[in-house]
Amino acid sequence: MPKGETSRDGQGQFTIGVVGCGYWGPNLLRNFNQLPGARVKYCCDLSDERLSHMKALYPHLVATKDVGDIIKDEEVDGVVIATPVSTHYAIGRACLEGGKHVLLEKPLTQSAAEAESLVKLADEKKKVLFVGHTFIYSAAVEKMKELLKAGELGDIYYVSSVRVNLGLFQEDINVIWDLAPHDISIMNFLFDSEPVTVTTFARSYIQPGIEDVAFLILQYPGGTVAHIQVSWLDPNKIRRTTLVGSKKMLVYDDTSTLEKIRVYDKGVDVLPHYDTFGEFQLSYRFGDIVVPKINEVEPLKKECSHFMDCALNGTRPQSSGRDGLAVVKVVERACESAKLGGAPLPLDAGEGSGGR
Amino acid sequence: MPKGETSRDGQGQFTIGVVGCGYWGPNLLRNFNQLPGARVKYCCDLSDERLSHMKALYPHLVATKDVGDIIKDEEVDGVVIATPVSTHYAIGRACLEGGKHVLLEKPLTQSAAEAESLVKLADEKKKVLFVGHTFIYSAAVEKMKELLKAGELGDIYYVSSVRVNLGLFQEDINVIWDLAPHDISIMNFLFDSEPVTVTTFARSYIQPGIEDVAFLILQYPGGTVAHIQVSWLDPNKIRRTTLVGSKKMLVYDDTSTLEKIRVYDKGVDVLPHYDTFGEFQLSYRFGDIVVPKINEVEPLKKECSHFMDCALNGTRPQSSGRDGLAVVKVVERACESAKLGGAPLPLDAGEGSGGR
Amino acid sequence: MPKGETSRDGQGQFTIGVVGCGYWGPNLLRNFNQLPGARVKYCCDLSDERLSHMKALYPHLVATKDVGDIIKDEEVDGVVIATPVSTHYAIGRACLEGGKHVLLEKPLTQSAAEAESLVKLADEKKKVLFVGHTFIYSAAVEKMKELLKAGELGDIYYVSSVRVNLGLFQEDINVIWDLAPHDISIMNFLFDSEPVTVTTFARSYIQPGIEDVAFLILQYPGGTVAHIQVSWLDPNKIRRTTLVGSKKMLVYDDTSTLEKIRVYDKGVDVLPHYDTFGEFQLSYRFGDIVVPKINEVEPLKKECSHFMDCALNGTRPQSSGRDGLAVVKVVERACESAKLGGAPLPLDAGEGSGGR
Amino acid sequence: MPKGETSRDGQGQFTIGVVGCGYWGPNLLRNFNQLPGARVKYCCDLSDERLSHMKALYPHLVATKDVGDIIKDEEVDGVVIATPVSTHYAIGRACLEGGKHVLLEKPLTQSAAEAESLVKLADEKKKVLFVGHTFIYSAAVEKMKELLKAGELGDIYYVSSVRVNLGLFQEDINVIWDLAPHDISIMNFLFDSEPVTVTTFARSYIQPGIEDVAFLILQYPGGTVAHIQVSWLDPNKIRRTTLVGSKKMLVYDDTSTLEKIRVYDKGVDVLPHYDTFGEFQLSYRFGDIVVPKINEVEPLKKECSHFMDCALNGTRPQSSGRDGLAVVKVVERACESAKLGGAPLPLDAGEGSGGR
Repeated sequence: MPKGETSRDGQGQFTIGVVGCGYWGPNLLRNFNQLPGARVKYCCDLSDERLSHMKALYPHLVATKDVGDIIKDEEVDGVVIATPVSTHYAIGRACLEGGKHVLLEKPLTQSAAEAESLVKLADEKKKVLFVGHTFIYSAAVEKMKELLKAGELGDIYYVSSVRVNLGLFQEDINVIWDLAPHDISIMNFLFDSEPVTVTTFARSYIQPGIEDVAFLILQYPGGTVAHIQVSWLDPNKIRRTTLVGSKKMLVYDDTSTLEKIRVYDKGVDVLPHYDTFGEFQLSYRFGDIVVPKINEVEPLKKECSHFMDCALNGTRPQSSGRDGLAVVKVVERACESAKLGGAPLPLDAGEGSGGR
Repeated sequence: MPKGETSRDGQGQFTIGVVGCGYWGPNLLRNFNQLPGARVKYCCDLSDERLSHMKALYPHLVATKDVGDIIKDEEVDGVVIATPVSTHYAIGRACLEGGKHVLLEKPLTQSAAEAESLVKLADEKKKVLFVGHTFIYSAAVEKMKELLKAGELGDIYYVSSVRVNLGLFQEDINVIWDLAPHDISIMNFLFDSEPVTVTTFARSYIQPGIEDVAFLILQYPGGTVAHIQVSWLDPNKIRRTTLVGSKKMLVYDDTSTLEKIRVYDKGVDVLPHYDTFGEFQLSYRFGDIVVPKINEVEPLKKECSHFMDCALNGTRPQSSGRDGLAVVKVVERACESAKLGGAPLPLDAGEGSGGR
Repeated sequence: MPKGETSRDGQGQFTIGVVGCGYWGPNLLRNFNQLPGARVKYCCDLSDERLSHMKALYPHLVATKDVGDIIKDEEVDGVVIATPVSTHYAIGRACLEGGKHVLLEKPLTQSAAEAESLVKLADEKKKVLFVGHTFIYSAAVEKMKELLKAGELGDIYYVSSVRVNLGLFQEDINVIWDLAPHDISIMNFLFDSEPVTVTTFARSYIQPGIEDVAFLILQYPGGTVAHIQVSWLDPNKIRRTTLVGSKKMLVYDDTSTLEKIRVYDKGVDVLPHYDTFGEFQLSYRFGDIVVPKINEVEPLKKECSHFMDCALNGTRPQSSGRDGLAVVKVVERACESAKLGGAPLPLDAGEGSGGR
Repeated sequence: MPKGETSRDGQGQFTIGVVGCGYWGPNLLRNFNQLPGARVKYCCDLSDERLSHMKALYPHLVATKDVGDIIKDEEVDGVVIATPVSTHYAIGRACLEGGKHVLLEKPLTQSAAEAESLVKLADEKKKVLFVGHTFIYSAAVEKMKELLKAGELGDIYYVSSVRVNLGLFQEDINVIWDLAPHDISIMNFLFDSEPVTVTTFARSYIQPGIEDVAFLILQYPGGTVAHIQVSWLDPNKIRRTTLVGSKKMLVYDDTSTLEKIRVYDKGVDVLPHYDTFGEFQLSYRFGDIVVPKINEVEPLKKECSHFMDCALNGTRPQSSGRDGLAVVKVVERACESAKLGGAPLPLDAGEGSGGR
């Protein structure tokens, strides 16, 4: 579709429908509703109660239980989908085939095969397939990327991430599918690459067959190791990622309001060997800690604005369908590893990693 | 030796020598020096500088570089050894053969074979072989054991422990040997059992061949899983253990001065299935947090006093040679698992687990 | 007006207008908009920009710059006023005279005389005059009141409150008028009484004549002392109140998400004198800390609902005009004390304290 | 006395006696015992139990109940006094008259008159009179002084200090005498000046007539205001001082092990007026937070070493008798202000402030 030609409505606005008004959908709806240049026309959900609640908050919306109503409306440019993961593929496919740009919540789909199929379809249809990896739009993660690119931390030895809390248990997906995509998408973004192997140890304590605690180890090209702990069974809500570099170390604590990132001028310098001593010489460096000022904006606001920009102007998404596929591949493999009792499994970077 | 008959000196005191006056030895020396009924007669080290420092602090000590001086002194009842791990076996053996009670710092030895040999020798010589698992003498760990025994937490699903900081790098042992014995000894003590399998992923970043970061997974009989993260490469000093039980959850933070233990009345109750719904019913419980008052005493003080009690009165050690052996077996196996790239390895509980 | 007879609109809803759509007004509007049984008909502000932003969020509102439009609309039951303090009196008076129930943001007015006049007018008009002391509707403050009533803390010796941050500087009022009403309204509510004297030390560093740092000491009947520190010039945002009682102590930290209240079983017991020793005997009590579970609801939601209930059903407000007056009297006197360099000034409890 | 001529013992060491072996004395003793060039010859206390405990720890000491034994021993160069405040004057006077250098714990004496008398006597006897203001020897306070001197914080608007905990109640002095000298000595040191007025509000809850909670306001020359809160009745141990400067802000938290000082690049810039707007223009600055690396050494070690240096080499003490007097004057006046119900009282800087 030629840029801005047909599908924008008479008012020259980017028109969308939001599908799924449960937990996350209303946040997407609120942000698009406040976004200059965007217009939310539809809310869609299977629950009458959710629809009437949305109507109470936004009386100007059209409420529907049938996503088909949205797809066949020519005014609609894009569809924003925040439904259960198991439905992502079918709804996403229908929207793309209907000629809509698509923003799908993470994880993109429930299998790599489904994700690959959607990516291919979006290419064919020349539509934007966008995945809601919200964290990579946060100012804190952008700051980390900036510090990494500038070489401030040196080479990254390893990353250790903890993402735990009590509940909310999901019934259709395990804790790996639920929480790990956040960490994997952040790390893929920070390192500009995808892991080559994954090892996972997981247990299900509350719901048989649905893992609620898991420990993942990812190995990235170049040797960086990422350890990820996810759990629905922890007394505290922790979202903390530690990056250990050859020059400096960094802790990212997403639960902190004002001090999300701390940069530690700490490290170990390996000194050259001395013949006379013949032993390994180490020198510790304990320096200042810096808590950089971060300009907080709601990451979802940036994400929504960026999706509109990609749809209207052909800008390349920071979180494309391919990025969504890359994450799904890791999660899928992680679950396989867990089923095998923690065996290290290779990831075939294959097609998915190509086009970013 | 008949209890209290011969080897106590003329003043009726429990007489000891301290071997190794580097990092930890002086703490042992200070505690025995203040212990009523105990008398430190010797300090022993290979370094003139350390010996003269000890003499400056405690002018009444006999300083020697030869542990043989201590062994052949009939006044000496026990020897307290805080030397590098690689020397534990030889010194411990010599002391036991010389008829002394022995307190060896953790880890007991550098291999399970050595540990077994010492345990056997101590049995033959009818001497106390005691390992310095200091943490199990802390009021916080005792409180945890009390809560566990009383069933306050219910069944323990899993434990997650983090013991990280920057340095101090050791040259003769890796971070697993250095730090993990603390966690393993605490868990063996809390669960009154030993792990049946161990899986370890480790990396060495600073010194080739000496792992400085490791993630261990231990499986205990009955299904409890313990995840342990140890690292010499972390910007923060963290010593935190989370116990997740079917009734309550508990966090033990050893770096906190006043709030080492927090008990969370949190959990998930699995409700019975309802035919009509046919789906899994979960009920979350978010309740009060209690920070129990803990009466702080230096754990090492209790340890030293207990060692004297075991030596004089035949009391069974809370941290016997067998307990030291149990920990060494796990560490040895963990290192093997790491060398194999993270393979799960069984632990042959065998002899070591028997005698506690 | 007979209860529920005339002024409710045809849809049987409690109809309001919101005056002032700057910082706090939109929060009031959002809550009333979501409140079942309530209907926001008007938004009113002098700024075109604010009005059009409100219209964008809530297209169904009537926007006006003239509060008179609201007053003369017979459908309107109540007016919610969140304008600068200096305008509270005039707008509140006009609304009451127009027969509307009034919710005024805190502080109620800019002088005790104005507040007394409004209280009197509301009585004459038999309309609800309600002040937005939001904190007393928070679950944390309600929990504190519950603990105090149950005698859990014993007699309260003193309270120390810190409410500081960097900015936002106001131009028409000083930091005492801006921040202290929160603490005073909380304490009046907790102790069910009003202070009898106030002493204040204050300084203005940034804007000449507008104090930005102040320390207040209030003395309540019965001897309880309250120390309040307010500042626009502090690097950290702190909202912490410590209650020291004869039995227990309590810390209320409003910046904490999950642990707003901590109850310390700590105290000092004064033992009876012994003749033979003739000295004072004290016994310290260091016990557990309990963090009670608090069911979080947005306090403003409860406040809005309560205002509607008072207007419709004649329920007595927890934050009546008289309560607003009581706070204004303290603040007014505090500022006088500050001008006098920190002199202790008595508060004439007078009329204001009577009618609660 | 010519440097090093007479009173040092045959071994060329600085010889001292420690008087008072209760709470703080043993720390002084331990530090002098480890100080190269120093020799502790005596420990002195009225309690047999304390003396025998000291002998157990340091068998080489001479124990005595009579400070006269120390004074008449010509080998003794200095006397270190950590007895109850009420005895400071008499013991200090006797030692100075006996020709000894004197280190007196803070507060120097129980009245300004006594302190002035000791200062005068020390001048006459040409002996060092040194007060144990330990905090000014801490690396954190030195860092703060360095930052202030370098102008990093700009002009200091005000300081707010909190020093509270539960107990230890003293029987001979109130909480102002017990705790405030720490803050006053730190501030006098940081600002290189003494306050000109003091206002104090205090209450005694547990022991009649002995204040256990107090709020002090000190005004320094140049307009800096210091607010100090001291209490023996608080559930938490807090030692936190906030400095608010025109350029930056700083928080000093002495209970933090690793992050004692945080420097906030925060502030408010007052912009020049614009004619057209005629209103005050403010610009907030929210920048990075820096936690500077501080090299921790036990402050008491530096203090003891510095006392020896002053005694042997005539170095001017950082905490001289005059500094001790300056603090005592403020505390004395603060107590008078409290008795008067919080009246602001001037401090006659007088003689005490001269000689630093």
